[in-house]
Parts: sequence; structure tokens; C-alpha cells
Amino acid sequence: MARPDGRAADQLRPVTLTRHWSIHPEGSVLVEFGNTRVLCTASVTEGVPRWRKGSGLGWLTAEYAMLPRATNTRGDRESVKGKVGGRTQEISRLIGRSLRACIDLKALGENSIVLDCDVLQADGGTRTAAITGAYVALHDAVTWLAGRKSLAGKVEKVLHTSIQAVSVGIIDGEPRLDLPYVEDVAAEVDMNVVCTGAGDFVEVQGTGENGVFKRAQLDAMLDLGLAGCAELAIAQQKALAA
Amino acid sequence: MARPDGRAADQLRPVTLTRHWSIHPEGSVLVEFGNTRVLCTASVTEGVPRWRKGSGLGWLTAEYAMLPRATNTRGDRESVKGKVGGRTQEISRLIGRSLRACIDLKALGENSIVLDCDVLQADGGTRTAAITGAYVALHDAVTWLAGRKSLAGKVEKVLHTSIQAVSVGIIDGEPRLDLPYVEDVAAEVDMNVVCTGAGDFVEVQGTGENGVFKRAQLDAMLDLGLAGCAELAIAQQKALAA
Amino acid sequence: MARPDGRAADQLRPVTLTRHWSIHPEGSVLVEFGNTRVLCTASVTEGVPRWRKGSGLGWLTAEYAMLPRATNTRGDRESVKGKVGGRTQEISRLIGRSLRACIDLKALGENSIVLDCDVLQADGGTRTAAITGAYVALHDAVTWLAGRKSLAGKVEKVLHTSIQAVSVGIIDGEPRLDLPYVEDVAAEVDMNVVCTGAGDFVEVQGTGENGVFKRAQLDAMLDLGLAGCAELAIAQQKALAA
Amino acid sequence: MARPDGRAADQLRPVTLTRHWSIHPEGSVLVEFGNTRVLCTASVTEGVPRWRKGSGLGWLTAEYAMLPRATNTRGDRESVKGKVGGRTQEISRLIGRSLRACIDLKALGENSIVLDCDVLQADGGTRTAAITGAYVALHDAVTWLAGRKSLAGKVEKVLHTSIQAVSVGIIDGEPRLDLPYVEDVAAEVDMNVVCTGAGDFVEVQGTGENGVFKRAQLDAMLDLGLAGCAELAIAQQKALAA
Amino acid sequence: MARPDGRAADQLRPVTLTRHWSIHPEGSVLVEFGNTRVLCTASVTEGVPRWRKGSGLGWLTAEYAMLPRATNTRGDRESVKGKVGGRTQEISRLIGRSLRACIDLKALGENSIVLDCDVLQADGGTRTAAITGAYVALHDAVTWLAGRKSLAGKVEKVLHTSIQAVSVGIIDGEPRLDLPYVEDVAAEVDMNVVCTGAGDFVEVQGTGENGVFKRAQLDAMLDLGLAGCAELAIAQQKALAA
Amino acid sequence: MARPDGRAADQLRPVTLTRHWSIHPEGSVLVEFGNTRVLCTASVTEGVPRWRKGSGLGWLTAEYAMLPRATNTRGDRESVKGKVGGRTQEISRLIGRSLRACIDLKALGENSIVLDCDVLQADGGTRTAAITGAYVALHDAVTWLAGRKSLAGKVEKVLHTSIQAVSVGIIDGEPRLDLPYVEDVAAEVDMNVVCTGAGDFVEVQGTGENGVFKRAQLDAMLDLGLAGCAELAIAQQKALAA
Repeated sequence: MARPDGRAADQLRPVTLTRHWSIHPEGSVLVEFGNTRVLCTASVTEGVPRWRKGSGLGWLTAEYAMLPRATNTRGDRESVKGKVGGRTQEISRLIGRSLRACIDLKALGENSIVLDCDVLQADGGTRTAAITGAYVALHDAVTWLAGRKSLAGKVEKVLHTSIQAVSVGIIDGEPRLDLPYVEDVAAEVDMNVVCTGAGDFVEVQGTGENGVFKRAQLDAMLDLGLAGCAELAIAQQKALAA
Repeated sequence: MARPDGRAADQLRPVTLTRHWSIHPEGSVLVEFGNTRVLCTASVTEGVPRWRKGSGLGWLTAEYAMLPRATNTRGDRESVKGKVGGRTQEISRLIGRSLRACIDLKALGENSIVLDCDVLQADGGTRTAAITGAYVALHDAVTWLAGRKSLAGKVEKVLHTSIQAVSVGIIDGEPRLDLPYVEDVAAEVDMNVVCTGAGDFVEVQGTGENGVFKRAQLDAMLDLGLAGCAELAIAQQKALAA
Repeated sequence: MARPDGRAADQLRPVTLTRHWSIHPEGSVLVEFGNTRVLCTASVTEGVPRWRKGSGLGWLTAEYAMLPRATNTRGDRESVKGKVGGRTQEISRLIGRSLRACIDLKALGENSIVLDCDVLQADGGTRTAAITGAYVALHDAVTWLAGRKSLAGKVEKVLHTSIQAVSVGIIDGEPRLDLPYVEDVAAEVDMNVVCTGAGDFVEVQGTGENGVFKRAQLDAMLDLGLAGCAELAIAQQKALAA
Repeated sequence: MARPDGRAADQLRPVTLTRHWSIHPEGSVLVEFGNTRVLCTASVTEGVPRWRKGSGLGWLTAEYAMLPRATNTRGDRESVKGKVGGRTQEISRLIGRSLRACIDLKALGENSIVLDCDVLQADGGTRTAAITGAYVALHDAVTWLAGRKSLAGKVEKVLHTSIQAVSVGIIDGEPRLDLPYVEDVAAEVDMNVVCTGAGDFVEVQGTGENGVFKRAQLDAMLDLGLAGCAELAIAQQKALAA
Repeated sequence: MARPDGRAADQLRPVTLTRHWSIHPEGSVLVEFGNTRVLCTASVTEGVPRWRKGSGLGWLTAEYAMLPRATNTRGDRESVKGKVGGRTQEISRLIGRSLRACIDLKALGENSIVLDCDVLQADGGTRTAAITGAYVALHDAVTWLAGRKSLAGKVEKVLHTSIQAVSVGIIDGEPRLDLPYVEDVAAEVDMNVVCTGAGDFVEVQGTGENGVFKRAQLDAMLDLGLAGCAELAIAQQKALAA
Repeated sequence: MARPDGRAADQLRPVTLTRHWSIHPEGSVLVEFGNTRVLCTASVTEGVPRWRKGSGLGWLTAEYAMLPRATNTRGDRESVKGKVGGRTQEISRLIGRSLRACIDLKALGENSIVLDCDVLQADGGTRTAAITGAYVALHDAVTWLAGRKSLAGKVEKVLHTSIQAVSVGIIDGEPRLDLPYVEDVAAEVDMNVVCTGAGDFVEVQGTGENGVFKRAQLDAMLDLGLAGCAELAIAQQKALAA
């Protein structure tokens, strides 16, 4: 069965990474995976939270959120509901964990970086797009710090690898890469794969949304995910070289 | 004393109104007043809140918010803080009140419209840009409803006028139009003027931020505001004609 | 058309300012504009919030609230709802801003004053009564500080002018001063004017509640508001001289 | 040792019950026990909460609160803190429970009454003053319902007895009635006694604040409390007869 | 009329106090009054809250909670509701107050103890079981501190007496000790009595749940409560001697 | 390097599943994986939430929480903090998703089941113990429903498989099964594997906590996890047969 947008099963959607999208943040990237569009900003403050002072270590966290009408149906604002939902917290924690895997907090020195990933338009894979874009924003922010001589180490020492993420799933028994919303809701199994530029795993999360999955299916999804991340790593390099 | 960006005292910043910026909402406009950039979406649902059912009247509300790094220094998310701040609520209420001034809720019929104004980048005048952009998004949403034959009246009956807003202030004793952030913080008096396309006032809010003001100064600011709104009305017409 | 209580269009309701209404606060005034009854207290603490320490500057804030049955229909308590509503925050901010316009925070020295305005009975104009009463409570509190030799400057230096506020509106096309509830809900335009004892504007907020308004109408409302504030300033002087 | 205000150990402070203190509520009483001053209002709505509809039974609840500067030191507002404190909830529950002891909810019919007790000025015994005043406000509200023919039974059937409350304590080993703040903080034992007009107990709460207490001391406090409540019942009758 | 479980009116349910129920806390007791089962833990931290530092005094607080299905019908979690209910707060405060009556905070020195009482299974009398069990957990925690030489005084000086609590009530006119749920809901009057090992009262709370009560009934309940507490004090001694 | 408790790398800790631990819930299991101790209850209510009525489908959710002193250091209660933390929500969602994989909501009919998993004592692997115990509690609850003839299908139709979960990790380069706390904090990679009794995957979550991981390591962990789940499935069968 053909994919709704005619892609091959192992093909990514068109990916764009627009750096310097906003004027204020130290790093700011608009990442697009097809119609999914996430604004990733990296905000630097010199110094670390009080409980970490004097440790010589930096700090990195992430926050993910969606504009109310990023989706097809308007969702209520979490600020108005007065609490951050479980899905939002889960994704914020995933992004933070993923990006901490590429940063040497000692080489960062006592500086803090907050990665904000705000979904302006959603069409599946928002968390994986966010991770992929956040890495580029983070790179710009660390470079900015280096320019101010506020960095204990060099940029390449602080960021010893790159981080990418992509979703994979099984639809009608077929493993497919980078699901848009219409495939995501139809998937029997849904998996997110986060990798380093060196091809190692940082995080693997597979869920049988409408069923369970066998070892062979899991293996096929991991293959697709690794290959997709390798392509995304190249896109990040190109964007950073531009 | 010259303005920081070289404009005349009665000159607006470059204004752009990009319609159909996102794919999901019924109306979606990216409005820019110089570096201030607000995404205004209009979300339509057929039907009204329970307490209004059977009234024959429609419903319109607005919500304003800022991305955490829309500003020069990162602000904490209101969702994380667990409550909507006073400034945010005040502006949301102002936008809703302003746009309700142009809509005939009877002609709208039992349909609900939510206007979301999310500041992606802030450089002064976010609330007035939001009102100006929200009108265009609202117009697209009402037109969409008309296309679905879900409207009690015609578009021109539902929206009997247009709505614009602009800030004015007094800096170093001089009344100036459309203040960017750097002028806003230096202003002795700060005023927001909301008008209809017919040149009537919808709302006037003047505050002596760093001092008080005399009747003559108030009059000068009102003159500037009226003229600025008239220009913005033309920009809206052009955008809607495109 | 006659006003419901027979007043002339430019006439205030009977105004009373009862000082020392409660025993604990440094300043405590029960202000009445007709049936509207607001308890205004000024609470002094020596010292300022941590972030302001060492600045040499004092601090002044205000909080407004309504008893649940101050109105004709009982309203739910904001403490029970777990959040302060938009209207309440807006008015609290207005009161604070207005009273800061008359105080020299340097001459106040590192002292903090909180103005609490609790509406015991509402009949229109609660925010303007609150501002008018809060000034008198503030004056008593500053005088109390002077009596303890805790003031950097003299009372007249700390409070360089007085502050008054009044509502004006247009009902059936006629501009009227100091609206009770029954006129307030019927008004086409509703405006609050805050002035200093010297006749300057501190804040002007006009809203077309059920319609828009023309420049001439705005001018007529400003005239009424200025005259009303001048009368209130005299009432404040008398109360403080008693 | 003499009491600070010269009273005998078994003597109440001057008690006043001012009915019709506000214009809006169906019952509204300003109760004063010396300097303690509580505004008690009774708000009637026809009908009962959804889960009670069709039961034929009425509903009665109470809410207690304190103005921020009712006390010697300003307390933060619970609305601003975003939650109702333990002490406030405890007293609200006590007032509701106490007043439900005198009302026949079947004879009330499907009507709801909310008793709001707002402390305008505190000097010890606020909860007992609140209960004593709330009974009078409740009586006025039930009489109002009777006047509208909205009552299933007669007023005397709905309210089959009256309710009073008073505090007692042991200071320097001496049992004393109706403690002002200065005695309250010094008391070794603190007790609140709620009675009916017939001299039965509704609620008894004794706490060893700074120590424990013996059976004989408890008996002496109960004697004082019963006698104090009997006096308060007479004051209530006089107020209702006025 | 016989009691549902065949006990005499003045008889306690079987009471067990299992020390060292969990491995982590400094004191940890599973207390059972019949089917009521409460896990009481005492958590010690060296040091006191900031505002108490340098006072030489220790600190003791308590928190009570119920698992959602401790009762016959599942209750919503207070964490999910986002606030602690009035009943929970009231009981937490009661437990803290009761246990503070037996501890010499000066002899404790600048150490903090939190008593957590979590109801695993409820069948009436959860607050009184919690107090009785918490005393034993507290004793173990203080002994633990003594073993670390972190105590200013000896264990017997820090804990100068023991604390017990039991419920009493009047069912069908008969005073009964230690009510299970089925009697609790049927009781006309419900009372909780907290005593010291020396037979003094710490707290007495009697409520006419479905009626009022006379002095003679109150006296009979106090007799039962005192006798029940004396038995519980022996059970505590045995548990601590084991 | 030997494991702290002397186990083989592929060996589970002692597992106990105590059914009917509490008297009220329809299913109630105390599950222990070594020192980790979780009370899992299944609460049945006939009927489903309003939005699901008439669908013919049942409903199943889960909530996870920890007692404050389940861990070595006391944690603040989420009810007191006023919000459910990200970790708690993430685990609650995981448990619900995992157990929904074994239940046929159509065969369950319009009944609702809430699974509460409260950690009484924590020593690593609380979420996997919770899932394993919750399945047994769920089985008892469904059997209870069958006994009341309230089930659309038979028990075996409603629960078409069993669900187990176990943690695996890599410590000092060695893949190990079922990590206690001391291994969990030292693990380079941490993975949770949820399986069905048929040996299929329901969920796989692997995280490089202190590093990244290679495909071969992931494969080794999956092998261990599958084998561990198979053992747990046997333990569940034995418990249910007892």
C-alpha cells in the first residue's frame, strides 16, 4: 500500500533547518519535517542554579509546548488549565535527556542553557523534529558562548557529537520512517529513535499502540531509525556549515 | 531628537500581514510591526458554550501569550508557573473586547470563534499588532464559515467594520507613533488606541508610566493614534484583497 | 432622561471617607461613593523585598478584592477557585500604578506599603472609589512612618500630590459622572479617569462596551472626569484635615 | 490576676449584632465581640446543587475568611497564594456543621443557603463570633424565603433552635470566658463551645496549646462555655426582635 | 443492641503495632485498630527550616493521607485534584499538634522530624490509630538520633510522656468506644480523645453529627475515652519493649 | 564483577505476589521484587465516563504514586506541592498503556477499572513491579465482575493474555536483569521491557543515562528482558492458581 504522500517506506519527509529565525535567542532554529514546524531556541545564562554553584558544571534543560492551534482541532492552553499535561512533561524530559547526551557539562563550565521547543504547526513527529532542531540551536548557542570567551572548553569539546531523532512505525504490517499524523494514528506500533552522529543509540521508545510487536518487527524499525538519523545528521551539518 | 530607527514621529514601522501562515486554522495571519511578530489564528467551532445555547447568538474570545524567548531575556512559561499572569490576562481581555466591537454575534449565529495571538518575537506594541492581525484572521474565519453556508448573515453583515490598534507615547516630551521596545521603556506616557475602520474609538488606554500627562498631550497622542489606525486599516484591506 | 437617583449629569454621589475604621492598619479608610463601600487599608513594613535591598528605594503595591456577597448575586471566592481572576488582577494593577504616581519612593526610603482595597458593598465605581480611598489611607500610613522617624523625607516630599479617580460614561447619548451599577450596565461607553490633585492625568481608560465612541464624546467625558476628580480632591483634603 | 480589659472571668465582651448591614444579601449581620468584627451574610438561591435535585432537601454551607489586614500583621491573601489554608478550611467546616444543627433541611425545601463569614477585624474568638452572627443572618434569610412563600415549612419549623458559640481558655491556671487575642496566645488550654438555645452541645473542641489539661479543668471550661452561650442566645433574641 | 463485631461498649478492637515495617525510615510502624491499617513513618533530618536556625529548638510536623482505595469506594487522589482537602489538612494538623504535646523541642536540639501517616486500609478511627502509631514511630526515631549522639538530651527527656488517641461515640443512645466505619456513620455524636500516658487530655473534639448532646453524655464519652487511651498506652509500651 | 546481592546477571530478585492484601478493592495485590514493595489495587465501577457512554466499550486507567518515605530520603507529597510530577505522570501513563494491551474493552462492556499502584517501599524497578502486580489485581477484578454477571464476555476473552515487565541495564559493560536501586543509579543504560504472556513486546524503553549504547548491547538487553518476563508470567500464573 502506498504512503499518503507517495514516499518510499524508508524515506524522510523534506527537512529544513532555518537558523537565526528570531533575533533575541543565542540559538534559534525553525525546523520543518514536512508540515511539522517547530521553533527551537537556545537561551544562555551565565551561571547555574544555586544548588549547582561551585560545582564547575553547566546545566541544560528543555521545555516543549504546542501552540493551541498547532493541531487540526484547537487544544486548551496549559497555562489556562493551570498545569502542564503528562504528554508535554514526558516530551520535555525526553528532549532534555537526549541533548544532555551530547554535551560535556564540565567543558561548558558554569553556564546554563534552556532549550525551548514550541510547535507552531503539528503533523506528526513533533518531538523528533524538536530534538533534531534543538541540537542545531544548541550548537549556535555554544558557539556564541565561545565567541564571548565564556566557555571552559572548545565548541567541539563541549559538543562531542550531534543528536538526531526520528519516528518509525508499522502500518498495515509495513515498517515506515518518519510518520505524518495520518500514519501516526493508524500505526500498530510507534517508535522514536534518538541517535548520535556516531550512530549510537541515545534513547529508544517503542509502543504497541494498537497491538503488540515481535522481535523481528522491532529490529526492522531500529534499522529504519538508524538510517533516518544518519540522514538527519547530514542535514544538520549542512545547516551548520551554511 | 531622532528616533532610534530614523522614523518620523508620526510614522509606522513596516507592517506585514501574511495570511494562511499555518495550514490548520480557519484563519491564520502572521502580523509584523517591524521586529514584533505575532501569529494570530482564528479557530471556529460550530455551536456555542452550553450556557449560551438556544440564544441564537455566537461567541468570540481571545487569548494572548508570549513564547518564553520572544523577548530579550527568557521568561518563565505560564504553564509551568501554573497560572496566567495579570499582564497576559489584561491583554487577552483587551483583544477580545476590541474584536467583539466589530462583530454582529446575531449574524454570526451559534458559532464560536477563538482568536489566539501568540507572540513569536517581541519588540514593543505586541498587543496592538495582535489586534490588527487578529482582525484579518477573523475575517478569513468568517469567510470560511460563509463558504460552508454556516452563517446566519453575510460576511459584511457579520463584520460591519474593521478593527486596528496602535501604540503612541511621549518620549522626551515628543508624541510618537508605534513605539519599539527601546522607546516603550523610555516613554513618559504610554497609550494604546483601538479604532474601527470608520475612525471611531473602540478603546483608549493611556498611562503615565514615568509621570503624569496634560490634556494637550493626551490630545496630541489621540491625533497620532487615529492617523496610525487609518493607515493600518488600509494595510488590512490590501492583505484581504490579495 | 433623568438619572435613576435624580442627580445632575455632572454630579457625584454622596462621598464619605471614614478614617481609622479599623484598629490594626497604619492607614485605614472606609470610602463610600453612594452605596459603593470599600475598605482601604495601608500596611507598612520596614524594609523592602530582597531584590530591592540596598537600592535606597521604597516599595508600594495594591491588591483589590470583593467579598462574595458584595454584589447582588453571590460570586465564588477566588481563594476557593484557586486563582485570581483577570478583572481582579487588572484592577489591582491599576490601583498600584495610580498610587505610585504620587509617591516619591526615594523619599519613602526602604519601607514597603501594601494597599488593600476590599469591596464590602458594590454599586458601580468600585475601582475609582478604591483609588480615592487608598490615597487617604496611604497618607495616614506615611504620616505614621514620619511619626516613627522612619522616613527619609517629609510627608509632603514623599507624597507630592494627591490621587483621585472617578468613572464617567455615556448613557442614551448623554455623558454622565460617577455611574452606579444600574447606569454602568446600560452605558454605551465606560471610562475611568485618574487624576492628581494638580489636575494632571495619571491614567485614562475608555471602553466602548456596547458601541464605539467619537472624539467629541471622549472630550466630553474627559471634561466630566477632570471636574469630578477636582471635587474628590477637596473631599480628601477635608477628611485629612479632620 | 486581673484580665487585660478588667472583665470578670465569666464575663463576655460587649456583644453587638447589627442586622441589615449590607443591602444585597438576604441576611446580613455585622457581629462584634469587643474588637472582633465579622460580617456574616446569608445568600439564598432557589434550587439545590445538581446531585441533590429531587431529594426534597435544602442545602446549607459556610465559608470563613479574613481580610489581609484584619490582624495586627498583614497576612497574604489565600486567593493570591492559590489555595485555602488549613485553618480557614477547618473553621469553614465548623461553621457549616454548627449551623446545620439548627436547620430542618426538609422544611427548608429545595433551597440553598451560603453563609459567608468575613472577618473585618480580628481580636480573638473570630470563629465563635462568626457562628453567633451567622445564626442571625440565617434567621433573616429564612424569614425572607418565608415572605416569598418559597418555604416548605414555617420559619420556626425550619429553624427549630438557635446556635451560639464562645471561646473559653485557661490562663495562669484560671478558666476564663471569651478570650481576646492577648489572652488567646497566652492560654494553656483553648476551647470552643457551640451550643443550641436549649443548652445542648453541638460541638466541643478543646486543645492543650501550651500544655495538657485535667478533667476538672475541662469541666470548669464547659461550665463557662454553657453560661456564655446562654447569654449570647438572649442577645440574638433581642437583635431579632428589634 | 449488640455491636456489629460483638464487642462490649467499652472494648477496643484488636490493636497491633508492628515496628520496623519499612527499611528506609528512622521510625516506621504499621498500626492496626481492627481493619484500620495505617503506616506511620518518622523521618529525621538533621537541621531545621531556615527561619528556625540558631534557635536551638527542633521541629516536628505531621502529614496524613489516604490511599485512593483505602475505603470502600475509590476516592480521587489529592495530588491529581491539585489540592489537599479540608479533612486531610484538619487531621494532619491534629496529629502534629498532638505529638508536639509529648516532645521537648529544646532537648531535641536542631533536628527535624516529619511524621507521615498513610492510611492503607480504612475502617473508622484512622486519625486516632495514626496518632497512636505515630508516637511509637517517633520514639524509634528519637532513639535512632540518640544512637548517633545527635540529641541534646536523653530519649526520656525529649519524649516526657506518651500520646494515644481513640474515638468514642453515641449510637442508639449508648456510649461506645473505638467505632468502626459502620458505627461511625450511624453515630449521633462522634468524639476523638487524645491523651498522654499520664492520663491528661491533649485534645478533645466532640461533634453532634446527627443531633446534639447533653453534658451527661459528654461525661460518659470522656470516661470511655480516658480508659481506652490507658489501654493503648500499655500496648505502646509493650511494642517498644519488644 | 559480582552483583551486590550475589545474583547471576540473568536472575530475578525473589518475587512475591500477595493477593487480597486489602479488604475493599475488587482486586488487590502486594507485589514485591526484592525490597521493592508496591500495593496494586483494581477498582471497578459499573458504567463508563460520560463521553464514552453508549459506545459499548469499557475503560481502563492507571495511577502510580510513591509514599513520601518509600525512598531513602523523604520526598515531598505531590498533593502538598499541588501538582503531579513529570516522572509520576510518565509512569502512570506507561502502566495504563501496558495493561490496556491485554484487555478487550468490548468484551469488558461498559465497566471502568482504575489500577492504583502505590509504592510502599522502593528499591529500583518500581514501575515494572507495578505493571506485573497490576495484571494480577486486574485479573481478580475481572473475575469479580464475571461473578456478578456484569461482563459482556468471559474472563479469558476480556483478558486475552497476561502482562509482565522487568528492568534491564548495563553496568560496567555487563547486561543485567532486574536492577535494585544501587545498580540502577550506576547503570550506563537503563531499559524497561513490557511483554505479553505470549512473548510479544508491548513497550520497550531504553535510555542511555550515563552514555550511549550500541545495537549489540540493545539486543543483549532485549534477550534478558524477554527471559525475565517469561519467568514473571509463570509467577503470575502460580499466584492466580493459588
